[in-house]
This record gives sequence, C-alpha cells and structure tokens, in this order.
Amino acid sequence: MQGENLSDFILLLSCPDRPGLVSIISGFIYERSGNILDLDEHVDPVGKTFFIRVAWNFPSGAFPLAEIEDAFRPLADDFGASWILRHSGSRTRIAVFVSRYDHCLQEILWRNSTGEFPIEIALIVSNHADLSLLAERYGIPYYFFPVTPGNKHDVELKQLELLAENRIGTIVLARYMQILSPRFVALYPSRIINIHHSFLPAFVGGNPYRQAYERGVKIIGATSHYVTEDLDQGPIIEQDIIRVSHKDTLDDLIRKGRDLERLVLAKALRLHANHRILVNGKKTVVFD
Amino acid sequence: MQGENLSDFILLLSCPDRPGLVSIISGFIYERSGNILDLDEHVDPVGKTFFIRVAWNFPSGAFPLAEIEDAFRPLADDFGASWILRHSGSRTRIAVFVSRYDHCLQEILWRNSTGEFPIEIALIVSNHADLSLLAERYGIPYYFFPVTPGNKHDVELKQLELLAENRIGTIVLARYMQILSPRFVALYPSRIINIHHSFLPAFVGGNPYRQAYERGVKIIGATSHYVTEDLDQGPIIEQDIIRVSHKDTLDDLIRKGRDLERLVLAKALRLHANHRILVNGKKTVVFD
Amino acid sequence: MQGENLSDFILLLSCPDRPGLVSIISGFIYERSGNILDLDEHVDPVGKTFFIRVAWNFPSGAFPLAEIEDAFRPLADDFGASWILRHSGSRTRIAVFVSRYDHCLQEILWRNSTGEFPIEIALIVSNHADLSLLAERYGIPYYFFPVTPGNKHDVELKQLELLAENRIGTIVLARYMQILSPRFVALYPSRIINIHHSFLPAFVGGNPYRQAYERGVKIIGATSHYVTEDLDQGPIIEQDIIRVSHKDTLDDLIRKGRDLERLVLAKALRLHANHRILVNGKKTVVFD
Amino acid sequence: MQGENLSDFILLLSCPDRPGLVSIISGFIYERSGNILDLDEHVDPVGKTFFIRVAWNFPSGAFPLAEIEDAFRPLADDFGASWILRHSGSRTRIAVFVSRYDHCLQEILWRNSTGEFPIEIALIVSNHADLSLLAERYGIPYYFFPVTPGNKHDVELKQLELLAENRIGTIVLARYMQILSPRFVALYPSRIINIHHSFLPAFVGGNPYRQAYERGVKIIGATSHYVTEDLDQGPIIEQDIIRVSHKDTLDDLIRKGRDLERLVLAKALRLHANHRILVNGKKTVVFD
Repeated sequence: MQGENLSDFILLLSCPDRPGLVSIISGFIYERSGNILDLDEHVDPVGKTFFIRVAWNFPSGAFPLAEIEDAFRPLADDFGASWILRHSGSRTRIAVFVSRYDHCLQEILWRNSTGEFPIEIALIVSNHADLSLLAERYGIPYYFFPVTPGNKHDVELKQLELLAENRIGTIVLARYMQILSPRFVALYPSRIINIHHSFLPAFVGGNPYRQAYERGVKIIGATSHYVTEDLDQGPIIEQDIIRVSHKDTLDDLIRKGRDLERLVLAKALRLHANHRILVNGKKTVVFD
Repeated sequence: MQGENLSDFILLLSCPDRPGLVSIISGFIYERSGNILDLDEHVDPVGKTFFIRVAWNFPSGAFPLAEIEDAFRPLADDFGASWILRHSGSRTRIAVFVSRYDHCLQEILWRNSTGEFPIEIALIVSNHADLSLLAERYGIPYYFFPVTPGNKHDVELKQLELLAENRIGTIVLARYMQILSPRFVALYPSRIINIHHSFLPAFVGGNPYRQAYERGVKIIGATSHYVTEDLDQGPIIEQDIIRVSHKDTLDDLIRKGRDLERLVLAKALRLHANHRILVNGKKTVVFD
Repeated sequence: MQGENLSDFILLLSCPDRPGLVSIISGFIYERSGNILDLDEHVDPVGKTFFIRVAWNFPSGAFPLAEIEDAFRPLADDFGASWILRHSGSRTRIAVFVSRYDHCLQEILWRNSTGEFPIEIALIVSNHADLSLLAERYGIPYYFFPVTPGNKHDVELKQLELLAENRIGTIVLARYMQILSPRFVALYPSRIINIHHSFLPAFVGGNPYRQAYERGVKIIGATSHYVTEDLDQGPIIEQDIIRVSHKDTLDDLIRKGRDLERLVLAKALRLHANHRILVNGKKTVVFD
Repeated sequence: MQGENLSDFILLLSCPDRPGLVSIISGFIYERSGNILDLDEHVDPVGKTFFIRVAWNFPSGAFPLAEIEDAFRPLADDFGASWILRHSGSRTRIAVFVSRYDHCLQEILWRNSTGEFPIEIALIVSNHADLSLLAERYGIPYYFFPVTPGNKHDVELKQLELLAENRIGTIVLARYMQILSPRFVALYPSRIINIHHSFLPAFVGGNPYRQAYERGVKIIGATSHYVTEDLDQGPIIEQDIIRVSHKDTLDDLIRKGRDLERLVLAKALRLHANHRILVNGKKTVVFD
C-alpha cells in the first residue's frame, strides 16, 4: 500500500493568485493523458495567495519524476511558485528526536509498522539513553547525544552532520525536551514537526499541564506545529482537546494529555508525509 | 453579503469520471477570463464518479446566468453530467414544514435574520396552529393544514399546489411529524431536508430519545438527511453528537438533543443553500 | 416542572475536610426522615477542602426553608462552612446585561421560555437601545443606560440601585461590552456569570476571534466564568470548542463562535441556577 | 501508585432505594474513624434503585479486608444489596482474549506498563498464533487454542479451566473474533468487557465499518460493553466517535476506528478496574 507508485503524482504548490492557474495546471496534466484523482484548491482572500494540491495518475504507465519536474518547471517559474512534486507513496526519510517520554515514539513506531505513513524512519536521536530498547525492538538506529550546558553547540553540529549523511527530509520532535537553535531550525524550514502539550496559544512554555491544572480549565489540548525560531509560535498543523473536571488531578491531566499528544502528533505526521500541508505565513493550509 | 453577485458563479456537477474534466471545466472559465476562487473535486474510487464544485468570478463584470448556462451545456451533455449553475448569493426559496416543536423553526428564523443563509423563507406549512405567532413575528406567511387520517391525500395535493405557486426550491422539515408520500418526495428529489433526532442508523423511527434512554447509550446524536421514499434512509448530510450519562433522565436527553437538532439542521441547510452538497447514490459528497 | 418544591431541598457546602462530614450531613437528613436523591462529594487533595451537594426530599411533607436552615446552622458553624440551602426549583432572580449582540440574550430568553432554567429574568440592562424590542417580546423590563467616558461611575451606582431594588441574585453578562468596576464585582462574588468568546486563557482581552484567525488555530472556543476583579481571570465554569480550518474567514469564526457562546453561557447558567457550582479558590467544582 | 493500600477502601453497592442508606453507610465508616475521600451516589428515578461508590481511608492504619467485610455484611444483607469491597489499588487479575488484530492488545499492554490500570494481566488467550511475539515482549503467557467448527465446545472448556486455575477476575475481549457461548458468559457476569467497532446500536454484527461506509454516515464510533448472552446487546460502558467524510475510504474508516477502539476499550478497562461501574439492568451507572 505504501509503495512508490511511479505512475501516480502529487503536486503541492503555492503562488500569488491570478486567473488561469487551475486551468494551466490541469491542462498540463491532461495534455500528458493524466487523470486527476483528487484536487484541492484554496485562495487566501486576505493575502491573495493561491494554494493547490493535485493528485493524478497516468493510466498509460510510469513516468520518471525528473521528466515531469523538468516539464513543469517553466510554468512554476512563471507563476513565481513554491512547489514540490512527488511520486505518490514515495517515502519521506524521517528522524525522530526524543528525550525520556516514550508514548509519542511508541505511537509513531507502532503506527508506522502498520504501514500508516509513507515514511521511512531512518534514525532516532535522543539526549537520553532510556528509549534505546524501544528503538531496537523496531530495528531503528538510536543515537544518544548527552547534552550538557557546555556542549549544546557541538552536539547540534554532530546531529546536523548525522541528518545530512542520512538524507533526512523531516524531523519529528516526539516530546524532545531540548530547544533547537535558530541555525538548526533555519536548515529545515517547515520540516520540523513538534508536539506541544497544550492547546496553543494557551500555556506556552514549560509545564503546561500544571498551568492548566492551576488555571482550572475544563478542557485541555495538544498542538502539533512546525518549528520556527520563536518557541511555540510556529504554524499550527493540528490540535485536539479532551474534557477535564475538578476531579482530575495533575496526574490525570498528564495521562489524558498523553493520549492527545500521541494522536495529534500522528495526525500531523500523516498529513505532512502525504504532502497535504502548505505554509501560509504564520499559518497552515491543510488539505485534509 | 447575501446579495446575488452577478459576476460570481457556482457550478456543482457530477458525472462518470474520465481524464480531462478539471482541465475542460477550468479552461471554460479561463477562456472567459474568469478567476477561480474555490474548487473542490472528488472522485469516488468505488463508483468511478466525478464530483466538483467550482466558485469563480469574472473580474471584468456581470454575465447573465442563462448565457453561461447555454455556453456550458454542450460540455455538460458531453460529460453526461448532472449539474446546476448559480449566481453566488442567489437565494433559494424555502418552505419550512413544522408541527408543534418550535426549537428548529426558531433557530432557522433567527439565523436567517442574521443573514447567515442565502435563502428566502417564502412560507411555513404546519399541521398545527401552534407556531403561527412565531411565524408572524418574522413576517412569514403561515399555512395551517389540519391533517386527519382521511384527508392526508387531499392535504398533500393542496400543499404541492402551494409550493408550486410559490416557486419553492427546497423544503425543510423542521421536526414535521407527518410522513410525506412517495409521490410528494419524488417531486423534490434531494430537495427535502429532514432532521431526525437520533444518530442514524441507530434508533430509526419513533421516539428515538426513549429508545436511546432505554438502551443506555453514552452518546446521543442528531442526523440531517435528504428525504427519500424510505423512512430515515435518505443520504445523510450532517450528524453531530453529545455525551449523556446515567444521571440524564429522558427529559435531559430531549433537552440536550434539542440543541443538536437545531445546530445540525442549520448546518445542513447552510451547506445546501450554498450549493455544497452532491448526492452520490445513497450517500452525499459535502464540500465543506 | 420549575415550581418550588417545598418538600425538596438542595444543600451546597464547602469547608475544610475532616472525618465524619458526610455522616453528619446525611445523618441530619435521615433524622428528619429525609431521603437523599442525589449526592456529589469531592475533596480537593491539594487544598484539603471538602465540597458537597446534596439533594433530598421529605416524603412526609413540606418544611419551611428557615426551619431547616436554623437546625443546620450549628453544624455548619462547627464545620466552618460556606453553604447555601434552597428549596429545589426555587427561582434565582436574574438580571441580564447586554450591549448590541443579540444571540446570547435571544438564547437565554428562548430557553427560559421552555422552562429550562429555575430562574426568573427580572430585568435586562443595556448600554444600548438595540435589544429593547427583543426584551419586550418576552415581556422583560429593559433598562437603557447610555454610558459615556464621564458617567461610568454614576451609571454603575444607578445600576446597583436597580439591582438591589429588584432583589437580583445573579447577573448574566450576555456579551456586555463594558467592564464592571471592582466595587461592583465585589458586591456579587461568584454571582456574575460572563461569556468570553475564546478558549481561555488563550486570547484574553479584545477581539479574540481576530487573534485566533491571525494565529491560525485549528480549534476555537468559548468560556463562561465568574467575574472577578481581574479581567478574564475568574473561575471557569464551562468551556466548549469547535473546529475551524484554513477555509474559514474571520466572519466564519465569528459565526461558528456565536453558537459556542450561546450554548456555553446557557450551560453555565443552568449549572449555576441548579446550585451545581462551588468556587474553589481560582477554580470551580462543578457537580454536573 | 498502583500498590494495594491496606488502609484505603472502595465500596461499590446497589440496592432498592430507601431513606437512610447514605447515612448508615457513611456512619459505618465514621464509627471506625474513616475519612471519606470520594463519594458518588445515584438513585435511578425509574427503577428506584440506589447506587453508590465510596472511597475512604483509615488514617489510623491498615485494616484487613475480611474484617471490614464481616462488619459490613449485616448492613448489606439488610439493604438487600449487591456489593463489593476492595482495598484501593488491589489488582484485578485479567485475561485478554485476542485474534489477529494487534492494536487493542498493544494499547492495553503499553498502558499497563505505565502503571495506568490497577490490574495484573495474568495471561493472553488467542485462536491465532499471530500475537504471541507481542505477548512475549511484555512477558505475558500466551495460550493458543486453534478453533475449528468441531472443537468450539472443547476449547471453551479448556479455556474455562485455564481461567479458573489462574483465578481470573475479568476477561477483556480485545477484538476477539469468536462468540462466547451463553454458558461461558454466564460464569462471568459483568466481568467480560468487549469492544465493538461501531457506535452501538448502529451496525450490530459483522463488518460494521463496511456497513458505515455503505450507509454514508458522517461520524463513526466504537462501543465498549459488558458481554451478555445477546450479541452486542450488553450494558454499554463507554462510547466515542470520530468524524468521517466522503473522502474517507473504507480503509480510512478502519484506520480511524482503530484509534477509537484502542481508547474506548482502555477507558472501559480503567473504569472497571477502578470499580467505577455498576450494572443497572441493561444499562450501566458509571461513576467517572
């Protein structure tokens, strides 16, 4: 199910809006005898920006990705577009960063084992050794980088080298408790997915469950977002919530929140891996 | 906001799938210098049916509806399509059928007074006199048809005449407790919207809240659907739910359910009036 | 259904926790041949505070409220308790404060007309004349107090006089756009219910829907809370949420949020009027 | 956190309602210097049945369970009560029955490894060998009973023997695809927890996701219930739902439903293991 389909393509594109964009893009596909399977289009009425995701196949057979890319490039250049083109089912190479909590990593590894995501989990990075056994169980290389106040810069350099060597496309922060430097973040724009254990923008920063408990909210949440330079301020991909009551202790909030974190991060990763997310300034367009 | 925009169009179309449909439709718009504002497309992978909703405008000015329809008809005929074309904001003429419960009617009248729906509520039909005051308050003509076991056939004939005279496009059954005859239903295919006070297909038929109470469910629901010959079997437009517990009495279920009914029916009506629903056999495609 | 039941009582009480409280309270009822219909008890494990709501009846007949109060007072004094005792179904006298938005007022008036709340809406106060017709329709006196930067103090004095004269027990701020002074708030502790159109503590202050739109959240909310001196910081009674997407404009957020505001405020009012809420510092205990 | 607390007790009791029950029960605790931590009480207004859960501790020290049971028995006999008394944190011995789907088993094993449930998973029973590796990973004995049309009766006898030998208190059917005989079910009344992959009573029986897909529902659900003789008719413990749309294929429904099944079954098991469920005829009272 997750295999790369060489006759199936996905185009994800954004550019300034103007008449004719859908016609030109769908015409490009039709000229090559392609059949559109799914098309989502959105124009931001404020920014006048055009966003589109098109999935199509060529019933007549396989095309090399590069050939279609080369043919499409002049159009995209003319539009002034940001775009990617992928074979459907092509697997994004993923690095998962974790600390000590196992629930998000466990969830991603298990789901991936069911074939849910078109990804390849190439490696796991951690500042703790705790989860190496879990990684081993799923046969994923685990890189343990002890972090001290003094070595953060060096560790990041080594991590970046590791990511480059392994041609990592997307990084998933599965409750990774270290803050990435702006330099690191800038190298993976809209390609680092974080899970924050609150309903952002409520309870930014540390200990959000404690903050929620002390505020006495009746609903808690979790938020998955792309990481930007500004902590917990990146474009939101997905959020979900669960009700709590006065009976719930702080431990209950943490337990209930764990379920949210797992599901919200998994959903964000699935959307990302299926090329369903475009960034629109500080927001996302999600073609769900 | 609700005014008819003579330069803005909405096309809602379904037909057997084949390559080139999006290209031809978007090309048709582009040739006339139209700019697509919103496009949703879906291909049912089982039935191989193509569904599309396109909203566009002609920046250069107004076009008569008939002119665009005439130009588009040959394409639609070639596709073997079911389709409608509307000026954006054109108001569907609505008849609301009610019995004694006021909550759904109240909700629709109030929402409509805020300009939420592109509809014109032309008249209200009832088998009871109870809600005439509410109709009067909003200045809507109220037609009271007492129904007896013996006169159902005649009453329907009179109702149909009334609907025809008033050029009614869509009928909303806002907790109308009479069952429409197959003949009546056949005259308004996918144009009669009902609200059923259960999470269909659970609790078909009468007294669904009592059924839910006796079964001890932990969640109740409401369902809005198009009416077909088969009671409570029509294509589902929208559903929603609310949690209940052992503490809730039957009266609590009815009270909680009322809120669901109001919101679900209003949402279905908004989707319908904005031409966002296509029927796919026994199901709907909802471009939300 | 909403009539005062002279043989039915509700006790709402909080005090420092200690052994024997349930036994003493239930014993007090049993000694008088009362039958407990519903009992909810909670001990805050952090503050070691005891919270209880007991509903019971005296099958043998009616008791004057004062008689039971007098008998219970020595026990409550011994516990160091905050408490209220009410006949079940006794109606709280309510003043609703509004500005220009009608949806929350409309909702409360309509629901109250169905007998949903054990309240009497004694009067409506507004700083605008807009909603007087709506008030009139339901036969509720409407007091219009034009507010200018210079007369706020005087207006509040007149409002307080009006409330006192009318023996108002609880004030509902149904999208009232003025900020009450600390002096006003202090006179109605835990007796002023506000609806804030965001998922607090996110988007405190003005224009929360705009803030939410600009942040690109995927879920919006509404929060009902008791008013305290600190703006939007009072104990939260109830919250609810609805999903939004990149397709939703600011107007869509406002429209969707209106439904939340109506339902959340109505639920908070119902809980309050049924004596189901106890304040625990900056939080609430809600016996739902 | 999950250890048995010898000074902490939970009483779960139901009996015909009558005045004085709370007073007598709380008096029993108070006489022994116990302190009630949590008390939930409910009277079914239809059946006039009294339900209570009380959690308390004896600050002065440990009491043997049998001693309190012996002291309480005369009261319970007088009430005509069904009741259980447990040390808080005492672990129920569990057998999990599975077939080929791993998601529910995986979820329970992982959650249990975090200490979430006060249970001991004594063994896993399956009619397939597939999940033995997963069992092994968590160190739980796995019993594989191949089932053929001819040997169902014998297999059940062996299973019952195994359960008896291992003093199993509760059986969890984690997507077990065999139907238990009435004789088997009768031996574990209200002690067999099933997960059904639909929003009961919709889509009883086989292939509920296919049924839901074909009906075109907009929401799917999962239901956990106690098993009775009548298939899918037992008292419902917990339900939850997730939205689906016309874009979701049958595979998408199955994938989304898996998440529901995992969470709903886990919640039901936690409620059961914490002695929060009483059966009221064909329904449950859940003190959540």
